This record gives sequence, C-alpha cells and structure tokens, in this order.
Amino acid sequence: MYGAGDVRVEDAPDPVLRQPTDAIVRIVRSCVCGSDLHPYHSMPASRQGTPMGHEFLGVVEDLGAEVSALARGDLVVAPFAYSDNTCEFCREGLHTSCRNGGFWAGGEVGGGQAEAIRVPQAQGTLVKLPGVDEDSALLPSLLTLADVYGTGHHAAEQARVNARTTVAVIGDGAVGLLAVLAARQAGAERIILMGRHADRTDLGREFGATDVVAERGEEGVELVRELTGGDGTHAVLEAVGHMSAYEMAVGVVRPGGVISRVGVPQYEKAPVGFASLFGPNVTLTGGPAPVRAYIDELLPAVLDGTVEPGRVFDLTIDLEHTPDGYRAMDRREALKALIRL
Amino acid sequence: MYGAGDVRVEDAPDPVLRQPTDAIVRIVRSCVCGSDLHPYHSMPASRQGTPMGHEFLGVVEDLGAEVSALARGDLVVAPFAYSDNTCEFCREGLHTSCRNGGFWAGGEVGGGQAEAIRVPQAQGTLVKLPGVDEDSALLPSLLTLADVYGTGHHAAEQARVNARTTVAVIGDGAVGLLAVLAARQAGAERIILMGRHADRTDLGREFGATDVVAERGEEGVELVRELTGGDGTHAVLEAVGHMSAYEMAVGVVRPGGVISRVGVPQYEKAPVGFASLFGPNVTLTGGPAPVRAYIDELLPAVLDGTVEPGRVFDLTIDLEHTPDGYRAMDRREALKALIRL
Repeated sequence: MYGAGDVRVEDAPDPVLRQPTDAIVRIVRSCVCGSDLHPYHSMPASRQGTPMGHEFLGVVEDLGAEVSALARGDLVVAPFAYSDNTCEFCREGLHTSCRNGGFWAGGEVGGGQAEAIRVPQAQGTLVKLPGVDEDSALLPSLLTLADVYGTGHHAAEQARVNARTTVAVIGDGAVGLLAVLAARQAGAERIILMGRHADRTDLGREFGATDVVAERGEEGVELVRELTGGDGTHAVLEAVGHMSAYEMAVGVVRPGGVISRVGVPQYEKAPVGFASLFGPNVTLTGGPAPVRAYIDELLPAVLDGTVEPGRVFDLTIDLEHTPDGYRAMDRREALKALIRL
Repeated sequence: MYGAGDVRVEDAPDPVLRQPTDAIVRIVRSCVCGSDLHPYHSMPASRQGTPMGHEFLGVVEDLGAEVSALARGDLVVAPFAYSDNTCEFCREGLHTSCRNGGFWAGGEVGGGQAEAIRVPQAQGTLVKLPGVDEDSALLPSLLTLADVYGTGHHAAEQARVNARTTVAVIGDGAVGLLAVLAARQAGAERIILMGRHADRTDLGREFGATDVVAERGEEGVELVRELTGGDGTHAVLEAVGHMSAYEMAVGVVRPGGVISRVGVPQYEKAPVGFASLFGPNVTLTGGPAPVRAYIDELLPAVLDGTVEPGRVFDLTIDLEHTPDGYRAMDRREALKALIRL
C-alpha cells in the first residue's frame, strides 16, 4: 500500500531465513481484513509503501534449525500476531503480548498478501492443519482461524458469554458475524445483531442471531432496549471500532454487563464515568485477540464441518487482483475477499 | 450540608413509617465518608440544604406491616444503598441497580448522619447483627460493612484477585486500605499500596500490603513497574476517583490485567483506546459496590475478630461535632471519623 486507495501488486525479493527460529511459508490462501480498510482510507502517500495482510495459510517451504515441530510440506495456518507460545504471557493465553512476538507487515516482517513470507517464532506461531490438502474446500474456514473467527471468539470469551447471557453484537462485518457464531457456540440463546446490510445480517441469522436491529444511534439503542424489557443485554460485542459504535454499546448494555471490544478503536478517549460505565457497574474489556490461544479449541469443529466460518468470504480473487478486493470491500460490494494463490 | 464547607447539625422532624415495607432505625453509630468530601469541596450554597451520610448501624424502632424478618430492638447494619434483595438485579448480586432501590440522603430519604432514619425496603436492606449489643467494641468494624469494607472487597472481587495475582492499590483512604485487606483475604501475596500518608500506609501494611509506593504520577508508575519486573500488576484497585489516579492505574496495569475502580470518578471521559486499554487487552471494571451482596460473606470474620476493618476510624465524635469530623478529614488530620450517638 502506497497511500489511501493505492494498493499495488509488485515483485519483491523472495523471503529467506534470518533466524534459526524462522520458517518460510509459501502462501496458499490469504485475504483482506476490515482493519486493512483503515489505512486504505487514511494512509498518507508514501514512496516506500508498506506490505499488507496478516491472515494466511500455506505450506512450509523452509525451516530454521530450531524449529523441530514442523516439517517441509506441512500445511499450516498463522495467527495475525506471531509469538513464541512459551513466554509467561503466552502461557496465560495472551499471545498478542508475547515477549518475543509481533505483528505482520511491520518492521522487517512481510505481509500475508503475498506469495511467500518469513515467519518469525515459527514453532510457536504456525499451527499444522492435519489431514488437509491444498485444494480442500475447508481452506476458507480454516483461514478465518488466522483472525476473524478467533477475534469474534475473543469478544464472546472476554464477555463471558454463556447460556444465561443475552448478547448484542454491534457490526455486521466478518468479525461481527463470527462474534454471533462464537456467542451461539458459547450457548447464548438470545443474540441481537446490530447491522444494516441485509445480506450480511441474513448470514448472521444463520450463524445464530435471533434478532436483527438495522437502526443505528439512539434509535437502534431504543429498539434493543425494547427487545430486552428495557434493561439491555448482559454482553455487548463491539466489532466496529468507531466512537458511534462505542456509544451504542454503552446505550444497550445492561447494568452489571460487559462491553467487549474487538473492533480496533479509532478514538483514544471515551466516556467511562458515573453516567456511562461506573454507575451501572459496566465492565469494558477486549483488545487484539490472542487468536493463537484459540486455534486448538476452534479447529475441530471447522475440520468436521460443524461450523463454516468461511462463509464470510463472498469474493474470491487471485493475488494480481488484490486491489480489486480492497475496492469491493470498501464499497461494501464484498463482505470479505479471499485471495487464492 | 448547605454548601461547600458548610455542615450544620439541626433539629429535624422524627422520621415516620410511610410504606408497609419501611422501618425506622435509631442510629447508634454513623460516620463521614471520603465521598462526602466531594460536595464538601464543591457544593453550591443552598438555602434548603441536604441531609448527609450513608453509613449507619442502629436499633429497629418501628416496622411496617410487610417487614416480617426483623423485630423491634434488633441491632442492624444498612448498606449504602437500599434494595429489595429480591429483584433480578439483587439476585445477581447487583443491589446498587435494584429495581426498587435507591441511595440515602436523596429525594424523600434521609441521611445516616442523624439520630434516626426511615429505611425503605427494610426487609431487603437491613442485616441483623446477631449477638452484638449497642456497646460492643465490634461496632466500628461492623459499621465498615455499610460501605468502605464492602467497597474495598468489591474492588478485589471485580478484579478477580486470587493467590496468583499481583495487586496495586491506588489510594490510602479508608477504601484503599480495606481494598488491601480484601486483596489479602482473597489470597494475594504481593500487594503494592500507592499512598503518601505514612500513618495510613503503615496501617495498610498491617492489613497486608507488602510494598508501599509514596511517589505519584510517572515516578510512582516507574517504581511499581520496577517492583514487578517491568510488567506491572495483574490487578489495580483504584480507590481515589481523580483522573490522575486513573492515569496511574493505566500506567501500572499489566497486559491482560484489570483496573477495578471503586473511587467515584470525578471525570466522564478517559483514555481507553489502543494506547491505553485496548492494545494490552486491559479490562476496566468496578462501580458503586453492591455491599448488601457481601455482608453475609464478610460478617463472620468481623464478628470473630479475625479482621478489624474498623481500625480505619481514627477519630470518634458525637453527632453535635459532625462538622469537626468533616474538617479533620478534609485537612487529612483524620482518616475517617466515627460518629457515636
């Protein structure tokens, strides 16, 4: 990406091993994330450009000397943050704060919208996909383990969603829809999806939403309150990141409830005082999902087809057409673009 | 209170039963709360004045027809919010959001800094103190169940403090010191108390603080980080309510940790974005403590003398001298003033 609206596909040097803990992965599937649209809207023009993409699965091509648990030819998925999976934070399940971890497409690490990538901390980062081949129809769903499914799951997990919780999900992007799926898997029986794109909220209903509220702002808040006897919902999963979504979350949360944010906040300050969070004992939680911590748990139901999170992909392109994927998602013509290499 | 700095003791009509769910309590012990100092600093002058006080224990003098579980002569303690103890929110332990509840010293309900008070929802609100008489040396500790001990406990409870959590407590007022005690009771082995009044932090050490940091702001944050290997603490119990305390909390909390606020926020907006809470997956929780939910749990150790939360009282006055109690607390000459009737 060279600036807002300016995505180019270019030849780059092949990645090579630099550390004994590295691996080189040939990418088989990648995709464009809703969060990639933030720089697509606002990045200042740059001569240098930056690699993009943080979701991929692929085949191990080369391995550093210290990577013992993987072999060349393994099909693997990578979480959107790399991590050693052994430090104190990783052991606590907070891989996004790994002492030796980091994020793709920054510094000396490439992006996932590419033919190949160098993976630091490969042993901790890459998860083998057993019994799956490069042409499997499961690949789109497996790819969601890299970010959007694990992120939706994180929202539900942090909000402690269970069979007794009513849930509101704010946002009908891929993360919002998969937060619906995760809440349903956690046992929630009442899930209100707030979103205004009927084709998306229809998929949300298939994932488990029991109610859809298309209205936004005050009007949307009122409707959710009406649906919940005036009280609001125990859990609010906020999958947008704009201040308007935060305000809706505060509006619909029940006293004693939890607002769980996984949409990257596009603001720094927000209301948290007596009138918003403190008075009604509302908890605010969430952050970048430690999806590595969730892959083992979420993988079996994807492998056996019980869940199909890959249904969020409604456009498939090749790498050359990646700029078209950004454009289609930006125009809301596509929910999420899968890149097939 | 008639305005900032203007507290008067006046004759008022005796309270009478209004509802069949009411009781009249003759007050035996009351006190001044740190939160009473907020209007003591800022209340606009008023001709009407407002009753004050929300912490009291006393003897039941009269009962409405629907109050079956209490008898005249019972010695009882009241939480700082009244509640029916039967509604959905009360059953969830969130008595401060009771559908039929409210707070003392507002609307038609009197204050606890008085000789007697009408108690709405008496059956749900008042807790009998078994085997305790009006002269018991336990009364100061029992009175802390009305607010400050339960509030400190709420801070630890909401932060899920346990034997594996390191804890920072911000503030050496009565609530901060009792948050130390509550964290210790919850099993925490490392408790860093941030406060700059040596006589108070000495009591904090007796309650269980393992370290004291007297410095504030950036300097205080650095010292807490040094004490925790650079990472900060899992739980931060914020018992002040000013923005500077919030900023310190954000500064000392560990990635994945919890900031639990029980100091009433004197701000509405605060940093919650990527740089403060979201990036490190920090949870913000807390609010007015549902102390009614905790009295049954906290009472036994007070009755048998295992804990002495009443040690936070370092000044005893009679009702006539209540204005002196405010003054002494405001000047930091007293930690907390007990009113003995």
